[in-house]
Amino acid sequence: MNTKLVELKEILAEIDDLQNAAGLLGWDQQTYMPPGGAESRGYQLGTLQKLAHVKFTSNEIGKLLDQLEPVARGLPPDSDDARLIKVTHRDYQKKIKIPPEMVVELARVTTQAFQVWQEARAENNFSMFLPYLEKIVDLRRRYAELFAPYEHIYDPLLDDFEPGLKTSEVKVMFNTLRPQQVALIRAISERPQVDFSFLNQPFEEQKQWNFGVAIITNFGYNWEHGRLDKTTHPFTISFGIDDVRITTRINPNYFSTGILGTMHETGHALYEMGIDPTFSRTPLARGASLALHESQSRMWENLVGRSMPFWIYYYPRLKEVFPDQLKGIELEEFYKGINKVEPSFVRVEADEATYNLHIMLRLELEIELIEGKIEVKDLPEIWNARMEDYLGVTPPNDTLGALQDVHWSEGMIGYFSTYALGNLISTQLWERINIDLPDLLTQISQGKFSSLLNWLRENIYRHGAKFEPQELVQRVTGSKIDSAPYMRYLQKKYSDIYGF
Amino acid sequence: MNTKLVELKEILAEIDDLQNAAGLLGWDQQTYMPPGGAESRGYQLGTLQKLAHVKFTSNEIGKLLDQLEPVARGLPPDSDDARLIKVTHRDYQKKIKIPPEMVVELARVTTQAFQVWQEARAENNFSMFLPYLEKIVDLRRRYAELFAPYEHIYDPLLDDFEPGLKTSEVKVMFNTLRPQQVALIRAISERPQVDFSFLNQPFEEQKQWNFGVAIITNFGYNWEHGRLDKTTHPFTISFGIDDVRITTRINPNYFSTGILGTMHETGHALYEMGIDPTFSRTPLARGASLALHESQSRMWENLVGRSMPFWIYYYPRLKEVFPDQLKGIELEEFYKGINKVEPSFVRVEADEATYNLHIMLRLELEIELIEGKIEVKDLPEIWNARMEDYLGVTPPNDTLGALQDVHWSEGMIGYFSTYALGNLISTQLWERINIDLPDLLTQISQGKFSSLLNWLRENIYRHGAKFEPQELVQRVTGSKIDSAPYMRYLQKKYSDIYGF
Repeated sequence: MNTKLVELKEILAEIDDLQNAAGLLGWDQQTYMPPGGAESRGYQLGTLQKLAHVKFTSNEIGKLLDQLEPVARGLPPDSDDARLIKVTHRDYQKKIKIPPEMVVELARVTTQAFQVWQEARAENNFSMFLPYLEKIVDLRRRYAELFAPYEHIYDPLLDDFEPGLKTSEVKVMFNTLRPQQVALIRAISERPQVDFSFLNQPFEEQKQWNFGVAIITNFGYNWEHGRLDKTTHPFTISFGIDDVRITTRINPNYFSTGILGTMHETGHALYEMGIDPTFSRTPLARGASLALHESQSRMWENLVGRSMPFWIYYYPRLKEVFPDQLKGIELEEFYKGINKVEPSFVRVEADEATYNLHIMLRLELEIELIEGKIEVKDLPEIWNARMEDYLGVTPPNDTLGALQDVHWSEGMIGYFSTYALGNLISTQLWERINIDLPDLLTQISQGKFSSLLNWLRENIYRHGAKFEPQELVQRVTGSKIDSAPYMRYLQKKYSDIYGF
Repeated sequence: MNTKLVELKEILAEIDDLQNAAGLLGWDQQTYMPPGGAESRGYQLGTLQKLAHVKFTSNEIGKLLDQLEPVARGLPPDSDDARLIKVTHRDYQKKIKIPPEMVVELARVTTQAFQVWQEARAENNFSMFLPYLEKIVDLRRRYAELFAPYEHIYDPLLDDFEPGLKTSEVKVMFNTLRPQQVALIRAISERPQVDFSFLNQPFEEQKQWNFGVAIITNFGYNWEHGRLDKTTHPFTISFGIDDVRITTRINPNYFSTGILGTMHETGHALYEMGIDPTFSRTPLARGASLALHESQSRMWENLVGRSMPFWIYYYPRLKEVFPDQLKGIELEEFYKGINKVEPSFVRVEADEATYNLHIMLRLELEIELIEGKIEVKDLPEIWNARMEDYLGVTPPNDTLGALQDVHWSEGMIGYFSTYALGNLISTQLWERINIDLPDLLTQISQGKFSSLLNWLRENIYRHGAKFEPQELVQRVTGSKIDSAPYMRYLQKKYSDIYGF
């Protein structure tokens, strides 16, 4: 290998180590850290992130990248090394614009903000969280401004999570999608509601946990390289390809949250676990984008986990675990129940038909906050008013409203739209997979997931961040991100369930 | 404050952040890391430790220390700043001798060695651990050689844990102590053994856990800044003064291991939690030495936790938790039982009379390994032979022999003697405390520990690493580390229990 490339890889490996260490500090904060440890943790995260940032934006990397430019041109454009240089170059160009002090400040503010958010959410006290969120919005706005000129001030934030995508493109997609989704929800609301009352019963927590564990073990989640913990807000995090952890939350009085949430995070984890091990300790050892990542969590949660074939296999098993609760409930009824469409307050528990509207609301609010058109202090009121507009429901409190998501407390403004884009990509891929694996649904109905996992590993997972998201979707499906398959999927699924 | 001192403190703070982050990575490895994550973890620890090392041994720190020398001379010699400069200077002089590659190598080797040791210990398979231990001994020998010339090649290793102490000094202390301890054990063995059969019964794990938690809460362990987890080998670790964690292990078929181990670790934790908060993120934010640290764990475990006054208060409460197991066992009998002296295989479960002999055996083996007088492959055999010599027992397998301790797998050769020194210091302090707090034993018999904790905070804990160990012991007790109080304590305690 070229010696300059070896040098570059050595530095990138150390940066990856620092980022993974910071990741573990964050994981610990959400799982096991005693509450009084937040101040030191903030300093530690600040220092690690600053060091990673300084190392990555050093002249040394800049010079190596310059020297490697002709080398890259001589490599096959799809080769791992050519792509590694390209991705590094792109990241470098973005990150050299960010002053290290801002990295430290964001790390410290968000470490504290996360602690406060947890309390504020538990106590339904938005004003407690307000000063922290104000600081975060201000920091993220100042961050976006570093990248002027831009088409839209929100672009640099979106680009952090979805490389290359523009606010205007997302707006176009969402504007196409919204009226179709609203029409679908209306069509559904005009039909009799399905029965889902059986979901609201006591379901012993440990049994739910065990059932989830059995499912994801069958999906192929590798416990040798992972673990499952409980957190307020479920998430997946990896500290290298050999340590990919997930978390979940379980509602002891409601069935589907825990199981579907566990499957969701497993989708993320399977992606990370499937990355080519030779990408270890490089910037390629991550998903192609957040939307691609979300396409996997949503695929395993929804396209698999809420499907009829899946429950053909698992429903008899579930009945054995909860015989009293599910007595007299037939498979068809159960399937309809866990797929019921009902406008509700909480995004992570939203059904597939209403989910994207939750996302659109957040995207709009974020854009307006960053543009300065609305103020943070007015957020709860505006949130509730728009929930009424879009979904016809008004959250009874901020815990079920503007305080519900963890993302803002962690500084992740620019993130939300990737959830909706992930939904779109998941169905694009699903159409392709069902062509390549014509008996996939039969396999799923027999509790077999290895062909699916192998297809995903081969076509998506192993590539890590080697390809940009639009490019990867194009390679695999033949077209860019497209909302038509998602609408086809929703129409088919819900016209069957609701009979319209 | 002097601007150079401000600069120095800023760099030291970042180094402290890196070390605390590495600490968390280590904690996680011993508590929750999936087994397959060790490779990445090794890289991460290597990078963090290398960065901390490189930062600490930079010319920048060297220059600042030179510039601060006259400043320090102008400060009161006992002032925090003067001591910070002194301690930093001492560390710097030592660390600049160590090549960064050696730091990385040790981190990587020990990360893997720890994983392998866990398996080897579980499977009683020394040969599995052998190649790792060989590497570690070789690395530590090469490390020691960096500090030539020395009085003894083991000195630089000992000095890492016990600043300033020489192998020859420890040998003298141990040579004084050994015949006295051996004579004491002989005197005990000539008396009828006390009854301790009641300790070997099923004691429900969760109840043991809860009882331990209740005790240490009463000691003053602050859960806002700490937590308790289960590990193979119990330990205490802090990631800043505001996050000090302990671990324990509980034997469901034996009473005292869990409770006494939990108290032991709490002693370490109370020390760390009691350090002056203004020392945060400096090299003073740690105990004065490992022996001082151990004096605290042994004090809370033994001088408090195995004392009659302690059980006057707690025994009735324990009987409520385990009424069947303790039926008909009177306080006196219980007290004698948990203080029974019996040569045994496992150091951490050894009684106070035999404990130091376990340490002496380890110290001798370490010295001979580093000197090259014995080979790692012969360790199990030599271990067992010496156990027979010193304690009259032969471990039936290596899990109960040469594989029992975690320390070597973590590269900590040079550490063990601090355990015995800690025993000595604990009784030196105890004599002083009982003069200053004449009603201490009465208070303990009423379940009151706050005067004790306050005395320790005021005289020991708050100072952190401000004073060197011998200096601190001298300040508080009026003499240097001395074995006489420990022998007085053992003689008194066991002549009462065994009646000789």
